Amino acid sequence: MLTDLFSPTVQHSLDLAGIFVFAISGALLGVRKNFDVFGMAVLAEVTALGGGLFRDLIIGAVPPAAFTDLGYFLTPLLATVIVFFLHPEVERITKAVNVFDAAGLGLFCVAGTVKAYDHGLGLTFAATLGLATAVGGGVLRDVLAHEVPSLLRWDRDLYAVPAMVGSTMAALLIRYGELNAQTSMVPALTAFALRLMAMRYHWRAPRAWHRRSAATEGPDGT
Amino acid sequence: MLTDLFSPTVQHSLDLAGIFVFAISGALLGVRKNFDVFGMAVLAEVTALGGGLFRDLIIGAVPPAAFTDLGYFLTPLLATVIVFFLHPEVERITKAVNVFDAAGLGLFCVAGTVKAYDHGLGLTFAATLGLATAVGGGVLRDVLAHEVPSLLRWDRDLYAVPAMVGSTMAALLIRYGELNAQTSMVPALTAFALRLMAMRYHWRAPRAWHRRSAATEGPDGT
Amino acid sequence: MLTDLFSPTVQHSLDLAGIFVFAISGALLGVRKNFDVFGMAVLAEVTALGGGLFRDLIIGAVPPAAFTDLGYFLTPLLATVIVFFLHPEVERITKAVNVFDAAGLGLFCVAGTVKAYDHGLGLTFAATLGLATAVGGGVLRDVLAHEVPSLLRWDRDLYAVPAMVGSTMAALLIRYGELNAQTSMVPALTAFALRLMAMRYHWRAPRAWHRRSAATEGPDGT
Repeated sequence: MLTDLFSPTVQHSLDLAGIFVFAISGALLGVRKNFDVFGMAVLAEVTALGGGLFRDLIIGAVPPAAFTDLGYFLTPLLATVIVFFLHPEVERITKAVNVFDAAGLGLFCVAGTVKAYDHGLGLTFAATLGLATAVGGGVLRDVLAHEVPSLLRWDRDLYAVPAMVGSTMAALLIRYGELNAQTSMVPALTAFALRLMAMRYHWRAPRAWHRRSAATEGPDGT
Repeated sequence: MLTDLFSPTVQHSLDLAGIFVFAISGALLGVRKNFDVFGMAVLAEVTALGGGLFRDLIIGAVPPAAFTDLGYFLTPLLATVIVFFLHPEVERITKAVNVFDAAGLGLFCVAGTVKAYDHGLGLTFAATLGLATAVGGGVLRDVLAHEVPSLLRWDRDLYAVPAMVGSTMAALLIRYGELNAQTSMVPALTAFALRLMAMRYHWRAPRAWHRRSAATEGPDGT
Repeated sequence: MLTDLFSPTVQHSLDLAGIFVFAISGALLGVRKNFDVFGMAVLAEVTALGGGLFRDLIIGAVPPAAFTDLGYFLTPLLATVIVFFLHPEVERITKAVNVFDAAGLGLFCVAGTVKAYDHGLGLTFAATLGLATAVGGGVLRDVLAHEVPSLLRWDRDLYAVPAMVGSTMAALLIRYGELNAQTSMVPALTAFALRLMAMRYHWRAPRAWHRRSAATEGPDGT
């Protein structure tokens, strides 16, 4: 099983760290939307676990990990409590939160690809589910919070593309039989670095061809 | 099997009653949003069956009960017909509808917890899915109707907390081997009573700590 | 197996054609919402595959066809590339696109009904899932794009009703043992024709009874 890349403890700690930073971003959006503490907790859980939940439903791994591992379930609640009491402080370190979020993106796109492949999916679909694991929670968060999903918006720094590169690299490593605990860090770190650079240099994906010139004058979706 | 708490007929009648009142709230939102009769029916079905559908997908009980029991499917259509012809009358008895909705909340949070536990989930997750069974349909209803989910909003009377108390109590009764037809009424009635009191006294959950004073001036999520 | 109505090649080609036209409508909405090329691709995939994905999760056919057939996955990406470079031209032939979309609606409502029945669902539920296969992708598209689902809106030409007629006819043909490659074209063509006429004559479904007169003055959901 490829999922046994790391000792279970190391893998679990990495998972919990990724879940924690994703949950922070969900709870912070709950504060910004003026939701109550329960709404914050729902957004935290959904952001942290939604992508993996979608993956597990698709590959038929039921009940999903989110409903069998207490640590997965309680970590977002811990993040909610922290944001509840300390959200101005958390907002002030948004930059640091974003760095951790980028780390979570890198970890999840690789872990998601490996788990999907282990359940028998082809490499293209494993990479797609790896991407969905990494970004799916954020989409669900925005849908529940009644926002345009920031993943789809033109005026946001690249988020999906780094995850796509990471999950594609992981799939290629599997394809050539080179995936192990050491090499799996390469796609994760690549996705992490690409996301950091996308934030630093405000990289964006292009919009439809003829639209570009007109849209800078009056974007209607922003 | 814990699901055999009641005679099948009694259990089924309680289920249909809960489905009916949830469907009424879905169809009424369809009227308010100016949807056509088909849109009303979709909202009625989704509100009534969405929570249980989510639970059944998570626990792997496919096809879900919503797609195997004709009564579950037809009851929301009946509710749609009633609201279609009589919606001013139904609106006028909104208070009564809300009382029945609270009863549905109580029944569903207990039934959902028991069914999830019967499918092998741990008690914490069974209680969580009981909560999701009770409130999930309303969230789906609001997402499809393009509204901020009222479950997450600060300015609404407590809805999830009564269901959470009910499903937690049901899980504790299971834990101590005391759940039967009689005792299962205790968590259901507790959730029912808490929801009624939340509506009567406008109980609300707190928002994030430092926000409270500022947010009363200019809430941006309402 | 009823799914073997056609030679696999014919069936697959019909599926891909339906997926292609649905994906075009998703990518076009992405352009209108000012999303980037990645957002367009997500909407194209979701519109084309979302309905079938929902059906496959309900009937327990995991991993869903969308995650096992490369053609299903790549076709929406092809549609995205075409819309990316040629969207003014594609917009200009919106009428033609709508005709193809109506054809996809007809094909999908029949194919969805048959697949659901093959997986053991009752006829009523098979027809319901056939309808969901045909219209589910469009609802997901609108939810992700932060729009009121056009399926539910009163001021749109009938879309679900033609699919409902088609899937009901398909279920009746199954019921009377008369479904084969030839007869299955009847419900598909009926749904296709009804949708074309709905667009031509702007057929709409009624709204709730007493509302009709008042709502023409000030619709609040439009």
